[in-house]
Amino acid sequence: MKAIETYQKQFLAFLETYKEEREPKNLYEPIAYILNLGGKRLRPVLTLMTTDCFDGDTHQALDAALAVEVFHNFSLIHDDIMDAAPLRRGHQTVHEKWDLNTGILSGDAMLIMAYQLFENYQPETFQKLAKLFSQTALEVCEGQQYDIDFETRSDVSISEYLKMIEYKTAVLVGAAMKMGAIVANASTEDQNRCYEFGRNLGIAFQLQDDYLDAFGNPETFGKQVGGDILENKKTYLYLKALEFSSEKDQRQLKQLFSNDGSDFKDKIQIVKELFIASGAAEATKKAITSYTKKAFEVLQAITIADKNKQILQDFGTQLMTRDV
Amino acid sequence: MKAIETYQKQFLAFLETYKEEREPKNLYEPIAYILNLGGKRLRPVLTLMTTDCFDGDTHQALDAALAVEVFHNFSLIHDDIMDAAPLRRGHQTVHEKWDLNTGILSGDAMLIMAYQLFENYQPETFQKLAKLFSQTALEVCEGQQYDIDFETRSDVSISEYLKMIEYKTAVLVGAAMKMGAIVANASTEDQNRCYEFGRNLGIAFQLQDDYLDAFGNPETFGKQVGGDILENKKTYLYLKALEFSSEKDQRQLKQLFSNDGSDFKDKIQIVKELFIASGAAEATKKAITSYTKKAFEVLQAITIADKNKQILQDFGTQLMTRDV
Repeated sequence: MKAIETYQKQFLAFLETYKEEREPKNLYEPIAYILNLGGKRLRPVLTLMTTDCFDGDTHQALDAALAVEVFHNFSLIHDDIMDAAPLRRGHQTVHEKWDLNTGILSGDAMLIMAYQLFENYQPETFQKLAKLFSQTALEVCEGQQYDIDFETRSDVSISEYLKMIEYKTAVLVGAAMKMGAIVANASTEDQNRCYEFGRNLGIAFQLQDDYLDAFGNPETFGKQVGGDILENKKTYLYLKALEFSSEKDQRQLKQLFSNDGSDFKDKIQIVKELFIASGAAEATKKAITSYTKKAFEVLQAITIADKNKQILQDFGTQLMTRDV
Repeated sequence: MKAIETYQKQFLAFLETYKEEREPKNLYEPIAYILNLGGKRLRPVLTLMTTDCFDGDTHQALDAALAVEVFHNFSLIHDDIMDAAPLRRGHQTVHEKWDLNTGILSGDAMLIMAYQLFENYQPETFQKLAKLFSQTALEVCEGQQYDIDFETRSDVSISEYLKMIEYKTAVLVGAAMKMGAIVANASTEDQNRCYEFGRNLGIAFQLQDDYLDAFGNPETFGKQVGGDILENKKTYLYLKALEFSSEKDQRQLKQLFSNDGSDFKDKIQIVKELFIASGAAEATKKAITSYTKKAFEVLQAITIADKNKQILQDFGTQLMTRDV
């Protein structure tokens, strides 16, 4: 097992070889553009790391790792259109730099190209990877749809919210790791444990994103602290605050999160105080700990060397103790 | 071998079983909607028919046939967004009936669902079908991109145009037939011949579409005759007319096909006369005949019973002698 940076380097070198110039340019240039915007490449790193954990050959896992990354970037292009987002990682989004049609079509092509990356595997492995990929990709679409639906609903339950972030974010983390296990020919049980480790860690990671958006360190947090609050996003913090609040505070929160409340002075500060006073902030921290713990429990059951378990656990701990 | 209607019926009965109600509704209802707008279901019929030609079991081909139809409808949803089309088969397009985001996301889900339809096949067959499908789907995207690019280019060559319609339309016809051959375990040579038959017939079909749009019978032609001319579409007719015309006629044609010319009185009539006088109408008819002939030649080489060849040839002839 190697340091995370080693996997990142191995992946980036492979990504470099993927950049052949293809025609028509207007279809393939946006694809090269988004794939080169950077990012931590956590998902493909997890695929390579998991293969390595089972003493598999990480070179064999590169195609699967890239498929995950290509799919992730496909979803970013289409999500950015749906969210009308102008920026992605500090650069123009594809539909802004080009146009709507380019964003749609280049995204479609990336989804197909992700499947093509499995073609070098033997038929049995190919089928396993493609089946897992399809199920995951469809769940990501469902998660995105729930996210859109929730914007106009006032009765979203905590369990619905958890399902949404599980589908939209966590299943792809689980799938990235399971693919690494499939490539390494791990047992079905271990494949599923890798999936569960990644899925629980993914949920914890997303809940932490919710938490940090409100309570992160403004010095180190990449985005504007309180961005979710300004956008009236029904995050875990918000839903828990509603659950725990008096009727009076519920009314205030709902009003602050309506169009009415958008221009409210000190909105971020007031909402954050309600998040703390209601116990929602504490409940969110507890949920993060609980999902992280679940992830580490299932990790213990995987039949790999203890030192490999430790490396995966360190990776998870590192992810979950970020304040950025 | 059975009549076309028999395959249509078999396919429609299978499509009926595909309609389970799934959540989230806002994702899956548009999918059911577009799949039920009707159409002749030519592509899936060709898959079943090809399997039958090789004495394969058409029931085994239903999943592949449906994958082709689901993919085709995915491409309709996304193309209709890109073309800002309000109607599809006389009904509202998905992005009109719902909205842009629904059109994008439901389309994405359909592309994934098409792949899932191969999952019931054995790994070797699965891989063959999925590889062919990915290559074809990517070419369809490329064809769509060329089509968009051509709108703003004044130097499109005939060979570029032919490549565009081949990718956008014909390769899926070829793939639909090749999938039928793969499911029936036909030899690789025969699989490829089926693909070539479908591909050539597909090009002939699209050229005929161009021709009928200008010269079809207004009584029976589904769309407005001259629609392509009004929209300044650079069809085969237009490109051939430019190639064959005097400089003066070229100038007139180009002016008529510019924004300037949009309001020109009798535009359709004048352009049609130029198409005839230049010899472009005749050249288009010849090209249609030539591609149809190529299709029938490769059909003769397929190692199936003569009566089955005859049925495929009759189907092709029927397609190519339509005036609607």
